[in-house]
Amino acid sequence: MVAEIICVGTELLLGDILNSNSQFLAKELASLGIPHYYQTVVGDNPDRIKQVIEIAVGRSQLLLFTGGLGPTPDDLTVETIADFFGVPLIEKPEIIADIEQKFAQRGRTMSPSNRKQALIPETADILPNRSGSAPGIIWQPVPNVTVMTFPGVPAEMHLMWQETAVPYLQNGGWCSATICSRTLKFWGIAESALAEKVESFLNLTNPTVAPYANHGEVKLRISARADSSVAAKKLIEPIEQQLRQIAGLDCYGVDTDTLSSTVGKLLLEAGQTLAVAESCTGGGLGAMLTGVPGSSSYFLGGIISYDDRVKEGLLAVNPQDLAEFGAVSHQVAKQMAAGVRARLNTSWGLSITGIAGPGGGTDAKPVGLVYIGLAGPGPGDEAESFEYRFGDGRGRDWIRNLSSCTALDRLRRKLLFVKA
Amino acid sequence: MVAEIICVGTELLLGDILNSNSQFLAKELASLGIPHYYQTVVGDNPDRIKQVIEIAVGRSQLLLFTGGLGPTPDDLTVETIADFFGVPLIEKPEIIADIEQKFAQRGRTMSPSNRKQALIPETADILPNRSGSAPGIIWQPVPNVTVMTFPGVPAEMHLMWQETAVPYLQNGGWCSATICSRTLKFWGIAESALAEKVESFLNLTNPTVAPYANHGEVKLRISARADSSVAAKKLIEPIEQQLRQIAGLDCYGVDTDTLSSTVGKLLLEAGQTLAVAESCTGGGLGAMLTGVPGSSSYFLGGIISYDDRVKEGLLAVNPQDLAEFGAVSHQVAKQMAAGVRARLNTSWGLSITGIAGPGGGTDAKPVGLVYIGLAGPGPGDEAESFEYRFGDGRGRDWIRNLSSCTALDRLRRKLLFVKA
Repeated sequence: MVAEIICVGTELLLGDILNSNSQFLAKELASLGIPHYYQTVVGDNPDRIKQVIEIAVGRSQLLLFTGGLGPTPDDLTVETIADFFGVPLIEKPEIIADIEQKFAQRGRTMSPSNRKQALIPETADILPNRSGSAPGIIWQPVPNVTVMTFPGVPAEMHLMWQETAVPYLQNGGWCSATICSRTLKFWGIAESALAEKVESFLNLTNPTVAPYANHGEVKLRISARADSSVAAKKLIEPIEQQLRQIAGLDCYGVDTDTLSSTVGKLLLEAGQTLAVAESCTGGGLGAMLTGVPGSSSYFLGGIISYDDRVKEGLLAVNPQDLAEFGAVSHQVAKQMAAGVRARLNTSWGLSITGIAGPGGGTDAKPVGLVYIGLAGPGPGDEAESFEYRFGDGRGRDWIRNLSSCTALDRLRRKLLFVKA
Repeated sequence: MVAEIICVGTELLLGDILNSNSQFLAKELASLGIPHYYQTVVGDNPDRIKQVIEIAVGRSQLLLFTGGLGPTPDDLTVETIADFFGVPLIEKPEIIADIEQKFAQRGRTMSPSNRKQALIPETADILPNRSGSAPGIIWQPVPNVTVMTFPGVPAEMHLMWQETAVPYLQNGGWCSATICSRTLKFWGIAESALAEKVESFLNLTNPTVAPYANHGEVKLRISARADSSVAAKKLIEPIEQQLRQIAGLDCYGVDTDTLSSTVGKLLLEAGQTLAVAESCTGGGLGAMLTGVPGSSSYFLGGIISYDDRVKEGLLAVNPQDLAEFGAVSHQVAKQMAAGVRARLNTSWGLSITGIAGPGGGTDAKPVGLVYIGLAGPGPGDEAESFEYRFGDGRGRDWIRNLSSCTALDRLRRKLLFVKA
């Protein structure tokens, strides 16, 4: 049984958005062991959507549609599918009630145009959308063809896929073998360097080991195919052990771990607290830390000292040092870390000051130069500072993101060192 | 004359990579005024590639292939296309010479496997690849069908497209018209409500008006087709005027504008400064504001008061009010805004306090309840506060992002009001 991914939306044909939904579904199908051979993108046009369905039913048994479930007149996916199979649409009162309730929660009233989203083919089941207004359908319009529709909004689609589609496919016998995978996550090592270190693992066939890199983070994905998830996990375990041994401290976690959640666990274990002082990241480090539910147990807050007056006034950075060494310097990074630690009375103070660009760089202090300061309860109580040169090739967002991640990684290594 | 994009590569079917090539080509085709209605992804499998070609030649005249031009055995695109049209491949000595030279430049010797890349259909032209080893082809195998192949590596593909394909298409009379578009951006109105307000515009044919929504933001894209970009812009202008008039203050900007950049412009115009006090967003509002280059001219910094002790100690929030009304309340939001404004000595103080979840909600104060405080130089100098209920359906990140954007929008409306 073969699946096919069909993404509907003129915005995809105009290049307005990147088709991340295809990639998500492709990964998911692979991990469920459901083969798929084709992906199609088509605009919001009934005739062309029907042509695509005609082709798809001739070669695939599971048709996964994304997009075109919205309330506006150009959202045509469900009515076109129904029309293709010659089944009338009916309005489902339970969908109307659900949409009304969601609008009410946000203090709004449902628009008449949202009624359209309650129309589904007579013989189809609802694929519930917990986080948005547009539900999907699960439908077997003819023998050997199953249709599922999802909204184009990635967050809604992911949730609907995980909560309803995956159990449906698993219970329906779609998943031929079980593929389990585990992703090891690394910080502080380049993809090519890691790939060389683990070269011999990259030729394995079951489990397979594949390297990935994005946003400065490197990952190794171990995937095993077996009759059961228990058997697959048994294949993965020894490989994971060996890879961890080779990578050492550069491996910071697995799967859904983030640098923030890893740092959070270490702080919780140590019963310690953290405050941040941010200049060029402007709050991004705090936002990463507080992205972890429960972070209030160890993260007390911080000071965004974008302007030098805030560095002086709230972080007690020495004005003479600011004048002599500049805001982007070892001296100021250390004083920011020590200052926020003292001000918020935490175990650790972590600071970032740098030049995110595009302007503001000089020969001596180019765009991409960043200092990370760390003050903590170590002997001597002295703050440390670390210099990084991230370059200016990839722009402001890249430098800011790398700065926050690197700051978290510095603290992570320190906490592991203190623990050992 | 219609184009079609065909991306070849099993890595796309496995979800290992995001299909950015489709988006690139889609945008380029739109800007050249060459319509395209379908995009297909297919694996490195000759039979399935042939099926895709069969379908494509039946509905499109320009077939753009990416991927499968490499030296390894699974790179099959060119030989499969040649086989489909029944034309033999021949080895082009000039390609061999070019590849050998590129290897020599990097101090390497050409592998025997690279000879494969010099094989192209007898009657095809070379589409040169200046930055990589694999050249493409430009080929008219039968009347009314033109085939172009590009490597899957985005940087190589982009260069080949710009340097050779675009001039070829322009000189060959493919570019019927120029398409220009302009995107109006909205905050504070639902997609369905906006679509109803501008309903009559959604049926226009030139320019077209199409609504989009993501991350709580709504957009209207106006696209015009004309002989020149000047003429296209003339078609867009009156429609934009009318849409802006209908939407009023809900329209905050166009194209690359963000809520942060719009707020920044208003603050610069007014010669005013801003500081933020963040609880549940943990720095995300500051990160948004400082995402704009040059934001240091009006954004001085802020206080991340994640813990109540920081609200009391640094923002002078009254401990009794914290105890009586709770941290998530009108009272505390106002005091946070006024506190950070006083502490950082800015024109405006903007605060956020809320329950981002997943835990911490109660019946009276559910997850998604957020207060936004605003203190400024208005008459009476009193801080204001606004209550929002974002619901718990879409999770912590969604609530935090919506909170930051909504805070920016509140300040934007206030600045416009003060100005008027």
